[in-house]
Amino acid sequence: MTAIKYEHIKTCKQSGARLGKVHTPHGTFETPIFMPVGTLATVKTMSPEDLKQMNAQIILSNTYHLWLRPGEDIVEEAGGIHRFMNWDRPVLTDSGGFQVFSLSDLRHITEEGVHFRNHLSGEKLFLTPEKSMQIQNALGPDIMMAFDECPPYPAEHTYMKASVERTSRWAERCMKAHARPEDQGLFGIVQGGEYEDLRRQSAEDLVSLDFPGYAIGGLSVGEPKNVMNEVLEYTTPWLPKDKPRYLMGVGSADSLIDGAIRGIDMFDCVLPTRIARNGTLMTSTGRLVVRNAAYARDFRPIDEACDCHVCQNHSRAYIRHLIKCNETLGLRLCSYHNLHFLLNLMEQVRQAIRDDRLLDFRTEFFETYGFNKADAKNF
Amino acid sequence: MTAIKYEHIKTCKQSGARLGKVHTPHGTFETPIFMPVGTLATVKTMSPEDLKQMNAQIILSNTYHLWLRPGEDIVEEAGGIHRFMNWDRPVLTDSGGFQVFSLSDLRHITEEGVHFRNHLSGEKLFLTPEKSMQIQNALGPDIMMAFDECPPYPAEHTYMKASVERTSRWAERCMKAHARPEDQGLFGIVQGGEYEDLRRQSAEDLVSLDFPGYAIGGLSVGEPKNVMNEVLEYTTPWLPKDKPRYLMGVGSADSLIDGAIRGIDMFDCVLPTRIARNGTLMTSTGRLVVRNAAYARDFRPIDEACDCHVCQNHSRAYIRHLIKCNETLGLRLCSYHNLHFLLNLMEQVRQAIRDDRLLDFRTEFFETYGFNKADAKNF
Ligand SMILES: [Zn+2]
Ligand SMILES: [Zn+2]
Repeated sequence: MTAIKYEHIKTCKQSGARLGKVHTPHGTFETPIFMPVGTLATVKTMSPEDLKQMNAQIILSNTYHLWLRPGEDIVEEAGGIHRFMNWDRPVLTDSGGFQVFSLSDLRHITEEGVHFRNHLSGEKLFLTPEKSMQIQNALGPDIMMAFDECPPYPAEHTYMKASVERTSRWAERCMKAHARPEDQGLFGIVQGGEYEDLRRQSAEDLVSLDFPGYAIGGLSVGEPKNVMNEVLEYTTPWLPKDKPRYLMGVGSADSLIDGAIRGIDMFDCVLPTRIARNGTLMTSTGRLVVRNAAYARDFRPIDEACDCHVCQNHSRAYIRHLIKCNETLGLRLCSYHNLHFLLNLMEQVRQAIRDDRLLDFRTEFFETYGFNKADAKNF
Repeated sequence: MTAIKYEHIKTCKQSGARLGKVHTPHGTFETPIFMPVGTLATVKTMSPEDLKQMNAQIILSNTYHLWLRPGEDIVEEAGGIHRFMNWDRPVLTDSGGFQVFSLSDLRHITEEGVHFRNHLSGEKLFLTPEKSMQIQNALGPDIMMAFDECPPYPAEHTYMKASVERTSRWAERCMKAHARPEDQGLFGIVQGGEYEDLRRQSAEDLVSLDFPGYAIGGLSVGEPKNVMNEVLEYTTPWLPKDKPRYLMGVGSADSLIDGAIRGIDMFDCVLPTRIARNGTLMTSTGRLVVRNAAYARDFRPIDEACDCHVCQNHSRAYIRHLIKCNETLGLRLCSYHNLHFLLNLMEQVRQAIRDDRLLDFRTEFFETYGFNKADAKNF
């Protein structure tokens, strides 16, 4: 009995990418998928209805942030995160580990857990595998993540080896502490940086614990794209074929395609909503910074190839005006379009897998987007 | 041939309030009506779809702000304000006068117009009746307002008399300068402060110019409520019965009802969206400050008597969490509910007029809302 079940539909004959479905207590999502991030139980500027209109199938929320505000007890009392934020589709929460390592300067790692300071109040906090499980059990997402250490890039082999081994011990403690395995699927996180031997050790440790799904962590932390692709290339074959695979914190269009080609099923990133806040948009022909003066009298949609609600109804000139005036509708429209862009990209990726032509799709997409240009940007 | 036509449906036998319709080039709205304010061609945090969902029938936008950003030429090039902001229902713009007098300290009034400084850049600007008409003709709203002086409260009778007479001369210049009377209806604005003789003089001057509608300005500027009601009581009978009457800048629930009873057809105010931004909500039982700690674990809707989308789907605890975290969805949900509250209040007012019981409705509403309490708040 596990809360999460992966159904494999087909493998792309051209690329080896997987088409599948993940069944959860709150319904099924198609893979490969992009998951919008709702840090504080809200995908910034979006309503649940907006997310459904753009066909978001699963969203992510952050354990660390919800622990601090409003507190997992309040979310639990509301009936869990789905009821709290009025989202009845699947939800995944991270473990809090990434925020502890990225938001706090003052942290001290012990075998027991991590001592650090609340980034808002400075208050001393202590997060352990058991505590992360208790919070995630209270929040009630469909998928929860094991508490891991996220070492910085680059890290020495010696340090990384000790870290990977501790993360494996923490994973085992997480599995033991997890109180609701019938309702919530717990994923293990493979670490190991750019060291093939350590990635292998981490994967083997975690696979032996038989999690219902696996994530690959510690990527997109500053390493070059080819390093990320190489790590994925040798890591995914060590993971079981009948479990979903999640690449954490990756949301640029090229990396989503390259990850799918290497057997990844799930992705998340704050990128589309974060860049939206300064008026940067992802379009089929590359990025567009709508706050630029060039768009003041441009009455075309953001992306003429996009069928999203924003592109059907609003002009670049209007959106630029809103962004220049700090009107929140501007952020809403930009966030909506960017999220729709990535969700739609993954629908195109799934179609290309069905058609056994994901490598061809990659070539076409990269060419149109401009990834092949000398000054190509990652989004 | 005028762009705006008032259709009188009935007068409330109990209160004398008017039920009517105003026909415009972009459709018809029912009166008495509340008009949400979209200062910069956006009602803060709301999309056009949100506004339609809550049944907003006409919105207001600000000439002064659009003149500065993005500039009326860009709005005109977009095809007018309706196309620019993707709102196909009626729009009213003010004249810029109120902002010139309220936002700028450094102003100098001459017979020709007003010299003042741009509140954003400090740049010197000059606004005249002719310039206001040119901007409003370019913006293209269904209803435009004459350029008037808005004297502070209180003002001496001598100053007010000179001001009223200048406003009448400016009104005549506005009418002459108005280039699109077949497409846009220009309303005159009755001034005169709390002086009955000056209100009468102003009304007579403007009525002789035969505007398609009349506003009452210079109220809700700091005077007590009973003064406002008294001014309305003697002013509306001087206005023609076959033209709409608009009370500018008034949006508290009690004043909307009291204005309707005194023959007012149209109201606007930033109040519902402005108070929403710090989590203050209008409910059938009075105001509710949702950011208060008392609501942290309150999973009831904002207003159990409200059938709006927010109250059907979100709890006080969730909205409080969003507001505490400065999440824009919190502002959206609060703004939506408050606007819906006032639009729905006006629907109840119209129904009470149909039923010849607006005074009874007033008594019931005031009692439930708490306006009869010693510490009653205005919203
Ligand atoms: Zn779009
Ligand atoms: Zn409501």
